[in-house]
Amino acid sequence: MEKLYIIKIGGNVIDTQPSLDTFISDFSKISGRKILVHGGGKVADELAKRLGISQEMVNGRRITDEETLKIVTMVYAGLLNKRIVALLQSCDANAVGLSGADLNSIRAGKRAGTPVDYGFAGDIEEVNTGTIAALIESGIVPVFCSVTHDGKGQLLNTNADTIASALAVALSKTYEVQLNYCFEKNGVLKDVDESNSLITTITQAGYKKLLSEGAISKGMIPKLDNSFEAINKGVKRVVIGHSGKLKEIIGSKKNCGTILTP
Amino acid sequence: MEKLYIIKIGGNVIDTQPSLDTFISDFSKISGRKILVHGGGKVADELAKRLGISQEMVNGRRITDEETLKIVTMVYAGLLNKRIVALLQSCDANAVGLSGADLNSIRAGKRAGTPVDYGFAGDIEEVNTGTIAALIESGIVPVFCSVTHDGKGQLLNTNADTIASALAVALSKTYEVQLNYCFEKNGVLKDVDESNSLITTITQAGYKKLLSEGAISKGMIPKLDNSFEAINKGVKRVVIGHSGKLKEIIGSKKNCGTILTP
Repeated sequence: MEKLYIIKIGGNVIDTQPSLDTFISDFSKISGRKILVHGGGKVADELAKRLGISQEMVNGRRITDEETLKIVTMVYAGLLNKRIVALLQSCDANAVGLSGADLNSIRAGKRAGTPVDYGFAGDIEEVNTGTIAALIESGIVPVFCSVTHDGKGQLLNTNADTIASALAVALSKTYEVQLNYCFEKNGVLKDVDESNSLITTITQAGYKKLLSEGAISKGMIPKLDNSFEAINKGVKRVVIGHSGKLKEIIGSKKNCGTILTP
Repeated sequence: MEKLYIIKIGGNVIDTQPSLDTFISDFSKISGRKILVHGGGKVADELAKRLGISQEMVNGRRITDEETLKIVTMVYAGLLNKRIVALLQSCDANAVGLSGADLNSIRAGKRAGTPVDYGFAGDIEEVNTGTIAALIESGIVPVFCSVTHDGKGQLLNTNADTIASALAVALSKTYEVQLNYCFEKNGVLKDVDESNSLITTITQAGYKKLLSEGAISKGMIPKLDNSFEAINKGVKRVVIGHSGKLKEIIGSKKNCGTILTP
């Protein structure tokens, strides 16, 4: 099986021009097959504030009413996705920006309104692996934003971490997939305020122990849950690390971040 | 040569939900090869107003400062492009939304700052016909928004009529291209306030005569200039008509709009 790197970058990386430029340059240098997935919540928050549209988060997920759906579509699929694609093209990576609606690449279902009504939030139902693999095999770099569709004309807001992990699972039937979450921290930390407290590897059994000890910060739990689910479903390896250390993360170098294994 | 329909829809069509739904349904029923190009100036104006960013037009073209470039990227490449793509998918048309940066499909150069400094406005330098034709031959429907890039990481605002005509000219080497401009009027009118004053055909010689008589309204001149330039460069036929009459326009039916011929 050929190797495929799926890399998700967080909103804080995208939001600052020097760190984005460096990241894109590093990303473009990864040889072989690769996919980029991005969020952009911080930029969406800023636009919402300027437009006077209040935002509500429940369990770390955005309540997406009609106006908020317009905002995330503008920011994720427009502003940030095209900025990233243009930068990749300048680094000779032949990128194509995609929402789940494009090429019907990711179809989702609107989340049920109970117990929490998240509005136009989508849970992924189908990843069109054939189409995505065809792009990759043509040397194209798909760049996914965190917007999907329901196949009936409705766009939906879908968490970018979840998109990255769903792509990784679906494509692990065709490729040996390494899934990488890149953000502004060095990885999973024992103490969130102490950047040197990096946990370098976590096994599934170790994760359960850390959880029971309350040693994992709330914000990291969905990412780790997602990651171990991906590993259980065929993804070879997940690495969580700093966006400035992409080269080391790709090489799974020691101290590159937190490496998750079965 | 296979036939290819390139259809450009204006901002007023996109902006109103019933007319967009009807148009998209009609468009999805065109059998064979097709490309959709859209603008969205009216929606961009509304967002700019809500954000308190004043907009300036010179000769019908938008002065695109940095903030305005963000607005057009959000509205054209995000909000409107993805709305159109999702609607097309719901009509079983396998659409992919593209800016010129995606797949490096349309490369432009930043317009010179004199005599008017249009800011981040791009003049098209190269259409990547091989890539676009490959999509079309795979049964994919490209949907272009009016944003291009310079290949050096900079996005640029490029008039949608111009994109449609540049695509038509470039692809006329591979296809028999019919270029169609669909908007909220019945076509080119003798009297802009009189919807029954449709000019059904205009030849190049006839156009020169109409121009010298001052019989063409200012707003139509760039569209007609573009169209005749496209015809001179290999495009088979240009039809300008109402977005509600797409079926008739595609069939070049009598009174479907204004048919331009050499």
